[in-house]
Amino acid sequence: MSVTVAELGEVQLIERLRCRMPRAASVRVGIGDDAAVLRWGGRDELLFASDMLIEGTHFTRRTTPAQGIGWKALACNISDIAAMGGVPRFAVVSIGLPRGIRLSWVDGLYRGLRRCARRYGVALVGGDTVRAPCVVVDVAILGRVPAGRAVLRRRARVGDRLFVTGRLGGSLASGRHARFTPRLREAQWLMRHVPVHAMIDLSDGLASDLWQIARASRVTLRIDAASLPVSRTARTVRHALMDGEDFELLFAVAAHAAGGVPRAIGRVPVTAIGVVAARGAAVQLVNRDGRIQPLIPTGFKHF
Amino acid sequence: MSVTVAELGEVQLIERLRCRMPRAASVRVGIGDDAAVLRWGGRDELLFASDMLIEGTHFTRRTTPAQGIGWKALACNISDIAAMGGVPRFAVVSIGLPRGIRLSWVDGLYRGLRRCARRYGVALVGGDTVRAPCVVVDVAILGRVPAGRAVLRRRARVGDRLFVTGRLGGSLASGRHARFTPRLREAQWLMRHVPVHAMIDLSDGLASDLWQIARASRVTLRIDAASLPVSRTARTVRHALMDGEDFELLFAVAAHAAGGVPRAIGRVPVTAIGVVAARGAAVQLVNRDGRIQPLIPTGFKHF
Repeated sequence: MSVTVAELGEVQLIERLRCRMPRAASVRVGIGDDAAVLRWGGRDELLFASDMLIEGTHFTRRTTPAQGIGWKALACNISDIAAMGGVPRFAVVSIGLPRGIRLSWVDGLYRGLRRCARRYGVALVGGDTVRAPCVVVDVAILGRVPAGRAVLRRRARVGDRLFVTGRLGGSLASGRHARFTPRLREAQWLMRHVPVHAMIDLSDGLASDLWQIARASRVTLRIDAASLPVSRTARTVRHALMDGEDFELLFAVAAHAAGGVPRAIGRVPVTAIGVVAARGAAVQLVNRDGRIQPLIPTGFKHF
Repeated sequence: MSVTVAELGEVQLIERLRCRMPRAASVRVGIGDDAAVLRWGGRDELLFASDMLIEGTHFTRRTTPAQGIGWKALACNISDIAAMGGVPRFAVVSIGLPRGIRLSWVDGLYRGLRRCARRYGVALVGGDTVRAPCVVVDVAILGRVPAGRAVLRRRARVGDRLFVTGRLGGSLASGRHARFTPRLREAQWLMRHVPVHAMIDLSDGLASDLWQIARASRVTLRIDAASLPVSRTARTVRHALMDGEDFELLFAVAAHAAGGVPRAIGRVPVTAIGVVAARGAAVQLVNRDGRIQPLIPTGFKHF
């Protein structure tokens, strides 16, 4: 009996591989969070992550300009580092290109990467360029976080209040997915002012990413449908829950400290969307009529 | 007039991008060597590199077993770190997979990655798994080198003697490209016992990689055809010069210290193949009849 990757699904695939990886004493957090946390000596720990964009899976050259693809390839990695409470520092970029692709297109891709790098203080220090049947852009990023201060997915506790930045849904439909602002400044503000228990960046859709925290922390997250900040493009709660690529922050704060979370950080709204209601991994949606329904872990599917 | 990537070629493409990258004070060496060298505080510096393998460009599933592809994806990165005089520590792996690929194949890929990781003490700490039209494996690696000790391509000097490890050519034809031994132990031995001026790992073919040192150091490398250690599969000097994926070390040592380079490190032969003859970037081949001919920078072409 031969099983295909499509039948197994991405989450199970990653889980399957995780337990088989060798560990080392210097690995504080390995596979399973937005970034690995690594000891290196000194006051800071290293954050290490990668994100790959594939033409046809994450974008098409017809609908997304080259510069947007370059921006997104780096920005989604910066978003991962931000969600760990860290600051991005260095990146390497591996690029696969079809043989006949125009140099002007490649220049656009690099312009997007460079602009994003400058804006967020990331040095592009290397990489690889190879021939491929479609455009592939894989960015690996190194960030810095004070030792012991990385914010993980697995520390949400019963009683915590849940918040999201920005507005959710419609990112792909509106083109925002290729020009979004990674919430680095907002995450850094939170690190200085609020004791954040758990944090994740929204890449696969709120419902799916709520489950990431629920599973990692083994808690039940209860979300108020009426409170969700639905984007103008998304319009429906369903889109706000299921659409991927928002690249906003979802975070958990102890009830006693929740009053310290402002309505906005700069111009970016921050919205209370629910609570950590109980132990045991689950996600529940409280509808406008008060009924509670279980939220299944769907969202952007990679396979 | 629109230029394609194929017309420009890989070397020119990387050069074109290099000068456009932002730099930072903490970047000791950026794009253009086997790995970037980064300051991080403390006694050690970080080495950071990535290498991408694409189905159809670097391998086919028909001719290379999954485990070989996994091994190679990590081993070629370890080879890069070794060639900088460093020790590999952590890696993240981004994988693109076609929808219908068998899980048993993916398990084979991961077995190869894991075996290589264990053998060389590398912790696999994260990555990304996405859908792609062909298999894509991109590994980004972090290594460690004592501050100021990284061996670069640009420090070869007139008078230096040139050496290579192992035997060259026929790597793809023999299948060695998917099960080679990255020369980490040999590079570390050299770091302890010999003042190495410049070093590179042979990935694109000796002729092409000689040019990398010649250009970076602005020197003329003169190679004796008769001295080249030709592998049994390659048989001809031409193959030893032009075939790619040897993953052996090419290094330059001051003439006065060249006597300290042994004939072998463990079981791996080390061969003197020529000298740094003059200033100015060039590579020359001394034929068996004593004639000197220029060696053009060809080898494995990515585009």
